[in-house]
Amino acid sequence: MNPPKTDARRHHDPGVRGFASDNYAGAHPEILAALALANGGHQVAYGEDVYTDHLQQVVRGHFGADAEAFPVFNGTGANVVALQAVTDRWGAVICAESAHINVDECGAPERVGGLKLLTVPTPDGKLTPELIDRQAFGWDDEHRAMPQVVSLAQNTELGTVYTVDEIRAVVDHAHGLGMVVHLDGARLANAAASLDVPMRTLTNAAGVDILSLGGTKNGALFGEAVVVLNRDAVRHMKHLRKLSMQLASKMRFVSVQFEALLAKDLWLRNARHANEMAQRLAEGVRAVHGVEILYPVQANAVFARLPHDVSERLQKRFRFYFWDEAAGDVRWMCSFDTTEDDVDAFVAALKEEMAR
Amino acid sequence: MNPPKTDARRHHDPGVRGFASDNYAGAHPEILAALALANGGHQVAYGEDVYTDHLQQVVRGHFGADAEAFPVFNGTGANVVALQAVTDRWGAVICAESAHINVDECGAPERVGGLKLLTVPTPDGKLTPELIDRQAFGWDDEHRAMPQVVSLAQNTELGTVYTVDEIRAVVDHAHGLGMVVHLDGARLANAAASLDVPMRTLTNAAGVDILSLGGTKNGALFGEAVVVLNRDAVRHMKHLRKLSMQLASKMRFVSVQFEALLAKDLWLRNARHANEMAQRLAEGVRAVHGVEILYPVQANAVFARLPHDVSERLQKRFRFYFWDEAAGDVRWMCSFDTTEDDVDAFVAALKEEMAR
Amino acid sequence: MNPPKTDARRHHDPGVRGFASDNYAGAHPEILAALALANGGHQVAYGEDVYTDHLQQVVRGHFGADAEAFPVFNGTGANVVALQAVTDRWGAVICAESAHINVDECGAPERVGGLKLLTVPTPDGKLTPELIDRQAFGWDDEHRAMPQVVSLAQNTELGTVYTVDEIRAVVDHAHGLGMVVHLDGARLANAAASLDVPMRTLTNAAGVDILSLGGTKNGALFGEAVVVLNRDAVRHMKHLRKLSMQLASKMRFVSVQFEALLAKDLWLRNARHANEMAQRLAEGVRAVHGVEILYPVQANAVFARLPHDVSERLQKRFRFYFWDEAAGDVRWMCSFDTTEDDVDAFVAALKEEMAR
Amino acid sequence: MNPPKTDARRHHDPGVRGFASDNYAGAHPEILAALALANGGHQVAYGEDVYTDHLQQVVRGHFGADAEAFPVFNGTGANVVALQAVTDRWGAVICAESAHINVDECGAPERVGGLKLLTVPTPDGKLTPELIDRQAFGWDDEHRAMPQVVSLAQNTELGTVYTVDEIRAVVDHAHGLGMVVHLDGARLANAAASLDVPMRTLTNAAGVDILSLGGTKNGALFGEAVVVLNRDAVRHMKHLRKLSMQLASKMRFVSVQFEALLAKDLWLRNARHANEMAQRLAEGVRAVHGVEILYPVQANAVFARLPHDVSERLQKRFRFYFWDEAAGDVRWMCSFDTTEDDVDAFVAALKEEMAR
Repeated sequence: MNPPKTDARRHHDPGVRGFASDNYAGAHPEILAALALANGGHQVAYGEDVYTDHLQQVVRGHFGADAEAFPVFNGTGANVVALQAVTDRWGAVICAESAHINVDECGAPERVGGLKLLTVPTPDGKLTPELIDRQAFGWDDEHRAMPQVVSLAQNTELGTVYTVDEIRAVVDHAHGLGMVVHLDGARLANAAASLDVPMRTLTNAAGVDILSLGGTKNGALFGEAVVVLNRDAVRHMKHLRKLSMQLASKMRFVSVQFEALLAKDLWLRNARHANEMAQRLAEGVRAVHGVEILYPVQANAVFARLPHDVSERLQKRFRFYFWDEAAGDVRWMCSFDTTEDDVDAFVAALKEEMAR
Repeated sequence: MNPPKTDARRHHDPGVRGFASDNYAGAHPEILAALALANGGHQVAYGEDVYTDHLQQVVRGHFGADAEAFPVFNGTGANVVALQAVTDRWGAVICAESAHINVDECGAPERVGGLKLLTVPTPDGKLTPELIDRQAFGWDDEHRAMPQVVSLAQNTELGTVYTVDEIRAVVDHAHGLGMVVHLDGARLANAAASLDVPMRTLTNAAGVDILSLGGTKNGALFGEAVVVLNRDAVRHMKHLRKLSMQLASKMRFVSVQFEALLAKDLWLRNARHANEMAQRLAEGVRAVHGVEILYPVQANAVFARLPHDVSERLQKRFRFYFWDEAAGDVRWMCSFDTTEDDVDAFVAALKEEMAR
Repeated sequence: MNPPKTDARRHHDPGVRGFASDNYAGAHPEILAALALANGGHQVAYGEDVYTDHLQQVVRGHFGADAEAFPVFNGTGANVVALQAVTDRWGAVICAESAHINVDECGAPERVGGLKLLTVPTPDGKLTPELIDRQAFGWDDEHRAMPQVVSLAQNTELGTVYTVDEIRAVVDHAHGLGMVVHLDGARLANAAASLDVPMRTLTNAAGVDILSLGGTKNGALFGEAVVVLNRDAVRHMKHLRKLSMQLASKMRFVSVQFEALLAKDLWLRNARHANEMAQRLAEGVRAVHGVEILYPVQANAVFARLPHDVSERLQKRFRFYFWDEAAGDVRWMCSFDTTEDDVDAFVAALKEEMAR
Repeated sequence: MNPPKTDARRHHDPGVRGFASDNYAGAHPEILAALALANGGHQVAYGEDVYTDHLQQVVRGHFGADAEAFPVFNGTGANVVALQAVTDRWGAVICAESAHINVDECGAPERVGGLKLLTVPTPDGKLTPELIDRQAFGWDDEHRAMPQVVSLAQNTELGTVYTVDEIRAVVDHAHGLGMVVHLDGARLANAAASLDVPMRTLTNAAGVDILSLGGTKNGALFGEAVVVLNRDAVRHMKHLRKLSMQLASKMRFVSVQFEALLAKDLWLRNARHANEMAQRLAEGVRAVHGVEILYPVQANAVFARLPHDVSERLQKRFRFYFWDEAAGDVRWMCSFDTTEDDVDAFVAALKEEMAR
């Protein structure tokens, strides 16, 4: 389906890949095929099309009979819409200090949603009941933004994966305190693949109330979805999505991508492959003296510490980011299209640069 | 490129079209081809890819050497980002009462941007210097939101098209009062096609400072762009786009669609065709006794008044919307994929229903 | 209680008054006495003091057993807190185009509360069921901000007063459509005095759900109160007041002013006097040839049209404002401290200037 | 001037004081006298009165020829208006985790101002250049809210006082990084009294750009002021104050209170007395075995750790708050009206309860 590499209108070399981000990858070919399938003719705009309708069935298959999906454009949009749907104007969100919503969304939760984030430092990106308790108090104190939601990320920003029991413990604790649980699942597929459980085990079966379900990092062109799991806890998604500027007019093209991912096992194949490449990368790296792997490699990310000058030389050969430049920490991400050869070449290059 | 109509995974009939909205249409096949072209390999996320870079050249070709495009997801997003970029926290936007930003965005300008809209009733959706003056005062009065921008739509929500002179008059008046001009160009291509002028004539050449450039209604899958025309009038688009949740990670797929539309003449072919279909429709309708066309048909929309029961029967055969149900007003939209046969069948049906 | 006029530290002449605004007046001496009474010793801050507690009894005496008062700082604060308390994030407020919340609050409802105002032009500042219907539609349409409240002002910005039946008609209509009713009562005392009814007749007895009750224009130093009349319709005022920056720490000093106004008849004496002065002024003005009174004089405001140069000369002798400078319209306000001599001198001056 | 204690309308005993907060105190009698002085006659509303004009001279005497004061209602209002005036829509504020703006304003900075707070844990409530550096990075990264301001509190929430050198170091560091400095001076008078320096030494002379100047805790009835020190760094306070609902109509009554505080030495007398009472209290407490004082007592607050049951018994005799109930930490505040007898009685009671 892809045009020949030599197409004159093509501005890039489709053979070049790196380890900077799973956002650097393009779309899986089955995604493009799905777009073509949904094209042609007229369909009702703004979500009343047949593809969005079909998506609901697919989503209920994954997340239970009460689940309802609201496709949106991007992850920040999914998070901010979801969090608004479970908070009052005076509500606050307990999250890890390292959470994407806290450090990587330019204040969109605060600015668009008027949300106050109550952050907690964590050793590995994961919240626990004890950590939650550091911010879970003062519901009756009007001087304090009222903690109404706990927001987890699965996987975390640090590439770690909550076990089912860990999620359950957090959810039970939050519910016991009268709070709702949001799960930022931009990479939920990777977590499910890592734990070898269905996505439902990590979400509705564990009591999560509302989910940001990632598509883009799982191989889509673009598109995420807010999945409402507990309708009693969630207010009026419909208008919230629109006023948050996340309502796609030709929504069939978001929905059909999710159908392509979720109806069979594309979501799992993509996630599993990315995870496997990260394992292969971690194994390779562990054999390189002087490079320290920082967190458990449980999904598609490898965080490492190595000499700064080595990283800089290596960056000239493969794209990746510093995570904490002062400390010499870097992040290497694998994606659905990372190949074994990519990983092996990278490890070889790392060895070379470490040896110089 | 499209799969056969009989594909079992296809949930809709690609042969069915109506007159409800240019958003009901899918994407032009050249758009899908462009997505495939941009796919494969890794590209820097969030806009530092080669397709977004190339888009800048294409956009400068249309809008002059100072133009800079910021791809976003949708029209509301484009408008709210653009308006934030030209207002202070205390700023207000003068616009037509019928403007999309006022009536069709669920308050996103107010809620996301904290913008106050100062609206003016208009006979035909168009602002004039005289109409602007009804709200253009009180800059020094802190009790009043400060008028800092005039926002035009070209075409207007009523399907009318500003002439070049009309735009210039509004721009000169606004500039003379120290205000900036934003143009909501969700259907700018249709206006340019209608007037048979380049888009620049209606925008930067007329002094417009910032533009919301439509892609979706012009045949794209999704995607709009804020085009900064006067850099001196515009503040820091980069962070504004992100905090407004309009920053696409795999931006190459937005940019390459715009390249497909703008690099050659796809934008014009699509717009011109939609306009011609609206003219054909208007001609057909004018021949039907008892149906009144409400505004000049200058782009791809036909507004008409007809008996309510006729509309309701007709809606069972072709999708379209009431515009003002109490008055019996309806809106019929043509799009890039409307065919002559579609129009002729619709007019024939209208005749039949009027005759019953 | 007031210091001698000759006090060297006094920067102004307490004998000078004009007709610019009831905000130009100071505080009634009984208000200052009440502040002194509440002073001394320690009282719990932020509203748990005995004066705020006593105020509740006083307010229930006026507005019924369910009423609860939340003192705030100013009128914009009262309105924006009250409107937030009866709207969801996607809610909209139907109000007159001339409403204070629309034209005189620098966009605070939009910016602080994220509220969308759906405005209606009115002949005299008053909403009616028919006028409300021009904006009361589309509750299920996510593209439109959802109309959830009707906000009336009593008196209106144009000095007109709703009759009891007019308020009831609006309230019944709004309730019938599932909307809540807010009353901006910055000058409610003047309306009650004008109609010679208790304030409850115009508010809870008429079905109003939430009230902004004015203190400042009724003779207080500062201070307004949101009075919740229908607790079922109102959400969680406590945090809303705080996050809207309207929570006074030494609240006893706001509450005791309201007690001074409301516990006996100071509110009524002040309002009645201001109204009488406006009647005296209107009578005097009617006798001046060439000056047209624009609206029924029903409270403490007189709007008039006269030659622009006359107004300008008159403004050199007495302070007042143009209302619509282009039209030659002016507003003359009376307050609790306006004297008969003030009015007579003003009318005499008007006659002189008209005769020049 | 105060009415007799036996006044029947008085609901409280003016002889009762505690150690809960300097907000529990009433107003200094000179403040009430000033209100009476400013009363009577008409004065232009909204800040164009002679008292606000005079205040500017007084403020310039304290803070230099460029200073300009904008009276507002309360401390949260002052902070949020000031911070908006020195940030863009994408701006962030670096502050201590314990800062009032972060923990005690119900998210008003986020909700009203759309501000992102970048917080840093501190040992004693004070920021340092090193601590600032933990959040001062990423100005060009659109995924991160842009650090544009450092907000200090003097005194801190923990009762500690920055030395002049400490403030200068922070200011120089912030300026060197292109950031502006805001000082939350709700208790600036106490800090100046503590260090025995003029307030200017801690603010404009140290390079602070914008100040929230406290009145309420310094003995006023209500009222704070934003004081602009560096006009080049500050945008358009006028509209910001109004849209933030902090514009008093009868502003003369806020301004004259500040004149009463600042024109002579009332501000200093009040602050110095409160500080002295805190020293007396600390001395007394230090002599009680088993009670630990937690932070240096540098202003009018004493933080202590003592057995929880002792605190609870003591609270039945004197009002005060737990600061960290789990840890057994309490806060004792002195105010302008705390007497030596109050302190001595409290220490005696503490001794008794510790001895039980």
